[in-house]
Amino acid sequence: MNLKQMVGIEASKYVKDGMIVGLGTGSTAYYMIEELGRRVKEENLQIVGVPTSIASKKQAEGLGIPVKTIDEVPYVDLTIDGADEIDPDFGGIKGGGAALLFEKIVATYSKKVIWIVDQSKMVPTLGKFPLPIEVIPYGHQQVLKQFSDLGWQPSLRKNAAGEIVVTDCGHYIIDLHLEKIDDTHKLAKQLDTIVGVVEHGLFLDMVHTVIIGTPEGVKTIHAN
Amino acid sequence: MNLKQMVGIEASKYVKDGMIVGLGTGSTAYYMIEELGRRVKEENLQIVGVPTSIASKKQAEGLGIPVKTIDEVPYVDLTIDGADEIDPDFGGIKGGGAALLFEKIVATYSKKVIWIVDQSKMVPTLGKFPLPIEVIPYGHQQVLKQFSDLGWQPSLRKNAAGEIVVTDCGHYIIDLHLEKIDDTHKLAKQLDTIVGVVEHGLFLDMVHTVIIGTPEGVKTIHAN
Repeated sequence: MNLKQMVGIEASKYVKDGMIVGLGTGSTAYYMIEELGRRVKEENLQIVGVPTSIASKKQAEGLGIPVKTIDEVPYVDLTIDGADEIDPDFGGIKGGGAALLFEKIVATYSKKVIWIVDQSKMVPTLGKFPLPIEVIPYGHQQVLKQFSDLGWQPSLRKNAAGEIVVTDCGHYIIDLHLEKIDDTHKLAKQLDTIVGVVEHGLFLDMVHTVIIGTPEGVKTIHAN
Repeated sequence: MNLKQMVGIEASKYVKDGMIVGLGTGSTAYYMIEELGRRVKEENLQIVGVPTSIASKKQAEGLGIPVKTIDEVPYVDLTIDGADEIDPDFGGIKGGGAALLFEKIVATYSKKVIWIVDQSKMVPTLGKFPLPIEVIPYGHQQVLKQFSDLGWQPSLRKNAAGEIVVTDCGHYIIDLHLEKIDDTHKLAKQLDTIVGVVEHGLFLDMVHTVIIGTPEGVKTIHAN
């Protein structure tokens, strides 16, 4: 069993009968959804899943997990998702998989959020992982220029075929190569005010529990 | 000549040969674009227009004004647009026509912005006009609930047929019935941080000149 699978299975233990569960996106969340599917089938677990991407929706439906959108539920009890980087204050960077917008919307309306990662994602300071910014296509060249002038080393995300990546919501992603973010809250506020920015990949003050996969086993830490 | 036509023609006098001109949207901007079209045809005015909506793009093209997107120009020299309300500090509400996102993007990258209005739009305090908020469709019910909990009297904008209005960029519009906004900058910052909000209709610290149509003639005021 690899580390991602290990934490995916561990996190699914927090899911109880009757819960509305936010289903994250990405290679670690994949194993969590698989495990929930197994429990629905074998243990008759009764849940409703709220997927954070088209990919997670398809996976959940294929496993027989009933799914609803965030607008069809009053709230979400628990969201389990991966992350690209997590700092000691439980701040994180997400969006490597281009699903940050829906992930952030679902997390915002969740009573509890658990992140599941392998230990390589735990870092002293955020920023080595490029920070994804979801932007409106109209004006994206101006936003790129503005980011560049700010010294943020932006790059417009493209796929292997060289085509611009378009998110589930029809936006573009600009990755900022910051290397080191000194003040995450300050940067988040600055990004919030920039016209053309839909959302950014800084997830701050949102997460209650982090489950970390290590070669020695699973380590669970809770926010204060 | 009605007041809207009067200010539209007056504003077009600020447009000089060689300029890149942001073309606003709405019933007042309409007359300004008509006048620019006339000058292009009759006076051989050389300009490039950057439209803020599909409607303005079609109008400009129909008049023979060359148009480019905001991403095809280095900057905009001057943007002329309407507004739904303007306060004594030159803050405004825009978005009655659902084009606020592209209007704000073009205004942001403009060296100079002129608003053209009839005098009924000049108000001591913003907020009587419903404040339009452009939101991501996914999660809009949660955002509506949040706005409602905040006492902001939100309503999802629908057309005469009862269908949800979809913006040029594929988003929804929620109108806030605030009646009176005590601190526009504070509200703008709060809206910026709400997950699911793409952009809001508060345009602050953006406008240099306001041209007002009154029954006694045109009145032009400049920001300090």
